[in-house]
Amino acid sequence: MEPRQIPPHLQPTWQELMQRLQEIDHLRRAVNVLIWDQNTYMPPGGAAARSSHQATLNRLAHAKFTDPALGRLLDALEPLREALPPDSDEAAILFWVRRDYDRSRRVPEAFVARAAAHFSQLFQAWTEARPQDDWQAVRPLLEESLRLSQEFAAFFPEHQEPLDVFIDHSDPGMTAARMDELFRELREVLRPMVQAIKAHPPVDDRCLHQHYPVEGQRAFGEMVAACYGYDFQQGRQDLAPHPFMIKIAQGDVRITTRYREDDLAIGLFSTLHETGHALYEQNIHPRLADTPLDHGASAGVHESQSRLWENLVGRSRPFWEHFYPRLQETFPDQLAQVSLETFYRAINKVQPSLIRTEADEVTYNLHIMLRFDLERALLNQELRVADLPEAWRARMAEDLGVVPSNHRDGVLQDIHWFSGFIGGSFQGYTLGNIMGAQFFQAAMAEQGPAIQEEMAQGRFDALRTWLTERIYQHGGKFLPDTLIERVTGRPLSVQPYLEYLQRKYSELYDLSTVQAGTPGD
Amino acid sequence: MEPRQIPPHLQPTWQELMQRLQEIDHLRRAVNVLIWDQNTYMPPGGAAARSSHQATLNRLAHAKFTDPALGRLLDALEPLREALPPDSDEAAILFWVRRDYDRSRRVPEAFVARAAAHFSQLFQAWTEARPQDDWQAVRPLLEESLRLSQEFAAFFPEHQEPLDVFIDHSDPGMTAARMDELFRELREVLRPMVQAIKAHPPVDDRCLHQHYPVEGQRAFGEMVAACYGYDFQQGRQDLAPHPFMIKIAQGDVRITTRYREDDLAIGLFSTLHETGHALYEQNIHPRLADTPLDHGASAGVHESQSRLWENLVGRSRPFWEHFYPRLQETFPDQLAQVSLETFYRAINKVQPSLIRTEADEVTYNLHIMLRFDLERALLNQELRVADLPEAWRARMAEDLGVVPSNHRDGVLQDIHWFSGFIGGSFQGYTLGNIMGAQFFQAAMAEQGPAIQEEMAQGRFDALRTWLTERIYQHGGKFLPDTLIERVTGRPLSVQPYLEYLQRKYSELYDLSTVQAGTPGD
Repeated sequence: MEPRQIPPHLQPTWQELMQRLQEIDHLRRAVNVLIWDQNTYMPPGGAAARSSHQATLNRLAHAKFTDPALGRLLDALEPLREALPPDSDEAAILFWVRRDYDRSRRVPEAFVARAAAHFSQLFQAWTEARPQDDWQAVRPLLEESLRLSQEFAAFFPEHQEPLDVFIDHSDPGMTAARMDELFRELREVLRPMVQAIKAHPPVDDRCLHQHYPVEGQRAFGEMVAACYGYDFQQGRQDLAPHPFMIKIAQGDVRITTRYREDDLAIGLFSTLHETGHALYEQNIHPRLADTPLDHGASAGVHESQSRLWENLVGRSRPFWEHFYPRLQETFPDQLAQVSLETFYRAINKVQPSLIRTEADEVTYNLHIMLRFDLERALLNQELRVADLPEAWRARMAEDLGVVPSNHRDGVLQDIHWFSGFIGGSFQGYTLGNIMGAQFFQAAMAEQGPAIQEEMAQGRFDALRTWLTERIYQHGGKFLPDTLIERVTGRPLSVQPYLEYLQRKYSELYDLSTVQAGTPGD
Repeated sequence: MEPRQIPPHLQPTWQELMQRLQEIDHLRRAVNVLIWDQNTYMPPGGAAARSSHQATLNRLAHAKFTDPALGRLLDALEPLREALPPDSDEAAILFWVRRDYDRSRRVPEAFVARAAAHFSQLFQAWTEARPQDDWQAVRPLLEESLRLSQEFAAFFPEHQEPLDVFIDHSDPGMTAARMDELFRELREVLRPMVQAIKAHPPVDDRCLHQHYPVEGQRAFGEMVAACYGYDFQQGRQDLAPHPFMIKIAQGDVRITTRYREDDLAIGLFSTLHETGHALYEQNIHPRLADTPLDHGASAGVHESQSRLWENLVGRSRPFWEHFYPRLQETFPDQLAQVSLETFYRAINKVQPSLIRTEADEVTYNLHIMLRFDLERALLNQELRVADLPEAWRARMAEDLGVVPSNHRDGVLQDIHWFSGFIGGSFQGYTLGNIMGAQFFQAAMAEQGPAIQEEMAQGRFDALRTWLTERIYQHGGKFLPDTLIERVTGRPLSVQPYLEYLQRKYSELYDLSTVQAGTPGD
């Protein structure tokens, strides 16, 4: 970037810092290519070497980032940081690099290596244990993970509780106590809403479970992604077992999806979800490319965009009023006789289930709360790892009324606890739901007529432009709380999200009486 | 690898050397993933960043390889090198690493950076100039390349002439003078052979130029590759504009091809050619994985395997006696009425042409000699860059009787001179032809009946096993001359290759009288 804000005598120092950071960035981007390939095209025989190639590049990047020479450059630029306009890119870069550098330096190299080796072993054990439903095979390893997580958290004693350390990493500025409050407000509404919906006869979603050849699914999904504004000249979609978005460069932001020929919703909404993540990354301002700000603001803010494009737009009635006739053209045998209303109700069916990633909008957050509360209890030594499966079952029964009959669909379900530190990797999903609704409400308040008019024609320029101006272009510049205030004029609040759910699902399930609690005060 | 040959007191030194080399190897393998992706799936928007990511990783690898600390480890192990059995892996590793380290250290960092920047600029200019046939746009840049090449060669004054420096890099032990002698022997036979063939009516190869849908071409080519022994669990084939083989790991050796629906030969023989390269890499002994010996012995030896499987096997009559009926099943509309003999003659049609990569077995080496002689003359200041196009035309007229009417099909044809130093990147192709025939003759002498019996059933285990035992498993352990002596019991000789060409093309073109010169003495 053009360092216009830097006085001449500090320019060489600034340039050297940028050069070092760029080298680290290039190593990390190369790792992203390795990860993308590993999940899409790598032949089975390449797996073992791939892990060690990634480990080497990650180790080199880490060593370069924790090099004391980088710390000295930051020290030399410290006066500048205070002199710069707080809203400038340069100030933001110095703020974030200083924060990450200090964080990294607090953790001894030996600990990093020990933890990496352990997580690698645990992940391998989990991939074998899960299909065999073998909880006991991973339990001792998970106990070691908990010890490592507590040890890691102890390097940052300024936080209130261990979970805060991990939350602050992926959602800067957030704390376990604040999350707890948000979850409480949500839960007061969602639990009775789920109860009320369960009292209704189940929605008929058989229309989604006919035979849908992959080629038509792909064509339709990519057509919608292009309508959203995803640029296929600067990205591509491929198949992967677990859909993800990955950024290789400003001009190379890729998404993946998976299809099931007996379930139309899986592939389509995966595509729309990952497209939301990708729109964020593709629309970061080019001047931030190759800088430490060239990424979304936090796990929660990122998820807000995937949820916004997947659910608030992609599961809405106006969206399907335009696109359903196109989908019927793509699959005439399957859908010609299915009404828009039937289809709309099918894709918004609420049904408590065991698997988080397959949960609907209403029950989804109850899955997250469960994980959040359990990992918090583990870290605070209020729950033993050995008691985790039973605690999982009890909470599922309480919140969702369904209980897994095995570990595979229970405590062994998610990769998160079995591939890294315990803590901090779930709250972002619910934060995304909350923020997505708050952003969307603000967009509609300012641009509602234009957005709706376009959506009726299958266009999304007004919405995407608004999001780009307010959110995307800034990349990782602002703290999430700052960004939310700037964009919506008010602090983070569950109210828009609860209003959205209540409006949508009251209509779908005739729930006029469900209004427990006073959300959003 | 297990350092069984290393005495205990030197083990820590050895281990540190191995660890450093492995880190460099991992960086280079990661670059290979980036290159593979760049040529197969990368969206256009990723191009600019990809170049700089590659440059960064290459620079890091180079810096690590030229680190004086690595030199000190080599110095400390120097006594060991002399004490080790000369045939041991460890001795070979120390020999090659010492050789490459000394080479790299002779070239100043500043020169490396200057040359890399220039070649990057030249390559960009060439990609634009070639379609526009604009020789003048690249001429001054090529002049600078020549100066850089001469400057580079001057860092190695122990070589007889500048070209030797570059030849020795890709084909260790070879010199321009030896190549010149080999080319002379070939040329004495090939030029009259081409003349004699031109006197015959042209072969009818219209059967290859019907409409061949890609899917059938792909299925047939991959079926043959699998019959050859290419392991698709440890590799894969994708589309690329210019076919290549690339090794990402011992268990991940990939090939690419391209198809033209109006030319069956292009895709099929590309696949067989790259499969030959891949068989070499897939069958290097696993104990050499991740060591500096985990690659083919030289450009020439590598090419010997692509040529052997593409031409000596894949364009032979016994091969097609088995596979032609399968090809007819794949393309009944196109080939049911075409006889094996007609097809066999079509795929072995000799016709002087302008483009090296499309040349047949007989004329191919004349294209190489031309380039070799011209780059030698440039480096020896006997030819000016400005006079290159005219020299090209004159030699084409003399050797092949065809002359390009533009620069695109003449001096601008190949990427080699426009992406790196001038010199050393062509002789390997002809060495491959010569060595391939010599290896194949030795294999037939020892295993002929088994090889032929299998080939009649579409199997190649005896041949591949023989090549693996004699050549593949050793990777880059032996000097090419040593390897050839070990495998064939005699030094490199053009005789087997000339005998092969004469036998095959005398029969095809009834050339009983063409026996100029006394090749192979």
